[in-house]
Amino acid sequence: MDTAVTDTASPGPGPVLAFDVGGTDIKSGIVLAGGRIVGLRRSPTPRDASDPGGAVLAVLARLAAGYRASYPQLPFDAVGFVVPGLVDEDAGIGILSSNLGWRDYPFAARARALLNAPVAFGHDVGAAGEAEFRSGAARDSEDAIVMVNGTGIAAAIFCDGRRIKGGGYAGELGHARVPDPDDPRRTVLLESVGSAGSIAARYSSAAGRAVTGSREVLDLASSGDKAAQRVWAQAIDALAFSIAQCVCILGTETVVIGGGISGAGESLLAPLRQAVDDRLTLPMRPRIVPTLLGENAGLLGAALKARQLLDQDPGGLP
Amino acid sequence: MDTAVTDTASPGPGPVLAFDVGGTDIKSGIVLAGGRIVGLRRSPTPRDASDPGGAVLAVLARLAAGYRASYPQLPFDAVGFVVPGLVDEDAGIGILSSNLGWRDYPFAARARALLNAPVAFGHDVGAAGEAEFRSGAARDSEDAIVMVNGTGIAAAIFCDGRRIKGGGYAGELGHARVPDPDDPRRTVLLESVGSAGSIAARYSSAAGRAVTGSREVLDLASSGDKAAQRVWAQAIDALAFSIAQCVCILGTETVVIGGGISGAGESLLAPLRQAVDDRLTLPMRPRIVPTLLGENAGLLGAALKARQLLDQDPGGLP
Repeated sequence: MDTAVTDTASPGPGPVLAFDVGGTDIKSGIVLAGGRIVGLRRSPTPRDASDPGGAVLAVLARLAAGYRASYPQLPFDAVGFVVPGLVDEDAGIGILSSNLGWRDYPFAARARALLNAPVAFGHDVGAAGEAEFRSGAARDSEDAIVMVNGTGIAAAIFCDGRRIKGGGYAGELGHARVPDPDDPRRTVLLESVGSAGSIAARYSSAAGRAVTGSREVLDLASSGDKAAQRVWAQAIDALAFSIAQCVCILGTETVVIGGGISGAGESLLAPLRQAVDDRLTLPMRPRIVPTLLGENAGLLGAALKARQLLDQDPGGLP
Repeated sequence: MDTAVTDTASPGPGPVLAFDVGGTDIKSGIVLAGGRIVGLRRSPTPRDASDPGGAVLAVLARLAAGYRASYPQLPFDAVGFVVPGLVDEDAGIGILSSNLGWRDYPFAARARALLNAPVAFGHDVGAAGEAEFRSGAARDSEDAIVMVNGTGIAAAIFCDGRRIKGGGYAGELGHARVPDPDDPRRTVLLESVGSAGSIAARYSSAAGRAVTGSREVLDLASSGDKAAQRVWAQAIDALAFSIAQCVCILGTETVVIGGGISGAGESLLAPLRQAVDDRLTLPMRPRIVPTLLGENAGLLGAALKARQLLDQDPGGLP
């Protein structure tokens, strides 16, 4: 090891192996102390109704062995992995993933038994939020929301400089209600109107034809398609409603928008800022900004959790 | 002092003087370590457009001198006082009280110069919430909201075991929007539909006659008055909407209802629990309970802050 140390820089904490388990695929890579990702790859998320959590861990173990074999010059000292759904990070349990199928699965304990390394476990959106909060688009805020908006909507919530967990239930913003744009006497879940997935689905339903995603709906709106314009405007209203709720409840200073919808950039953010402004009566307005770390925020957050196992100083991220 | 110490109990930390500055009157009293209040009194809140904060402090100084003279056997070691509006507790500043008229007033520093004792300063609802959270209706929760619902609505928000401040802006629940029951295409502020004050005002407006308060509207509803029933039902819907928002954002376990509306008891709480249940899709339901400390929660919270100046152990409250 001594020979690897240069005389001009501290070697910093060692490499860690990180996994971000998603609904479709598992992202993985060795993450160096500066945040550089080596060997980034995607593997299909296994589906096993009889043992959904165990099937995921089996893939992680196989991938870990592959990284050890392929990158002998980067021996990792810890593993971090994050999963979606409701997660109790302190207890190391996946409470519920209705999509992937587990319920009260003891991920952390099983992973420690299976992988030959210290293991850190967490919530995907929470970890992505931690990365944005420490080193990304919210790094100058004490009070922030990092919203990941794709198929659904979830958020990491930061108050007075720390992420709040609520026993695993905090940040389920997609399940908060907003006025139903189609029937104002009712309310609907935010993610059924304001998510990237719902924008595509609602346009397809209104126009009677399939689209590839929310980005195509945005392009149609830009070219004058009235149905596309309406669906986007309704999504922005719904998102603004929920952001304004957070500001009143929490005094949120910074809102980071990530996930698939963030590709819309200022076409989303500029009208969203105006719509939030219209809904607030107190003399305070949040900054609304795009993700800085992008689609690797979850993986970098998993690495951050692994590195915290090794060192009270989490080291640098990009 | 030694002679006051009995041989059967620790004397605990000494008495403190507490003030709860409200829109109509200033509550004050000497609070003993066990939470007993001695010399509880109310004095009119002064109105002085040229120096609204200074006028309040002059009353506090006069009252403090009176307590020293009247209770020589209870020499207080610290003073705690709390005020309404937007408050930056860490900086010791009253950011804004549109009702009482100050803006960016340095209460803590001025009070220290004026009163001959260590001074703790805070937000009235935040302090009331701290008292409920430590020793009252939320004492078994890590994640709680203490809502004070009277003329308006404000809340103290507790996440993962601590109160969040948001730079003084957290807890402004009364300014969060809810669907407008009179025009579902619009939204209105929660406190314009769900506060005790608005229940009285909306009934008066609908029925064309004045009432003494929300309690009278409740009695009218119980005796079959349709307008009174409608106004109460709309208030419960609005409160349930906002409570469900908090649960989705924060994972709130316990909601404490205080302020004037809490006098309605189970006539409010039972339908409110049902209405919150109807709005939640995740497998989690908050407990919704009445205040335990009642109208003195703010004063006890002010005492708690004062006692924290004297001792890292806040001592007992009832």
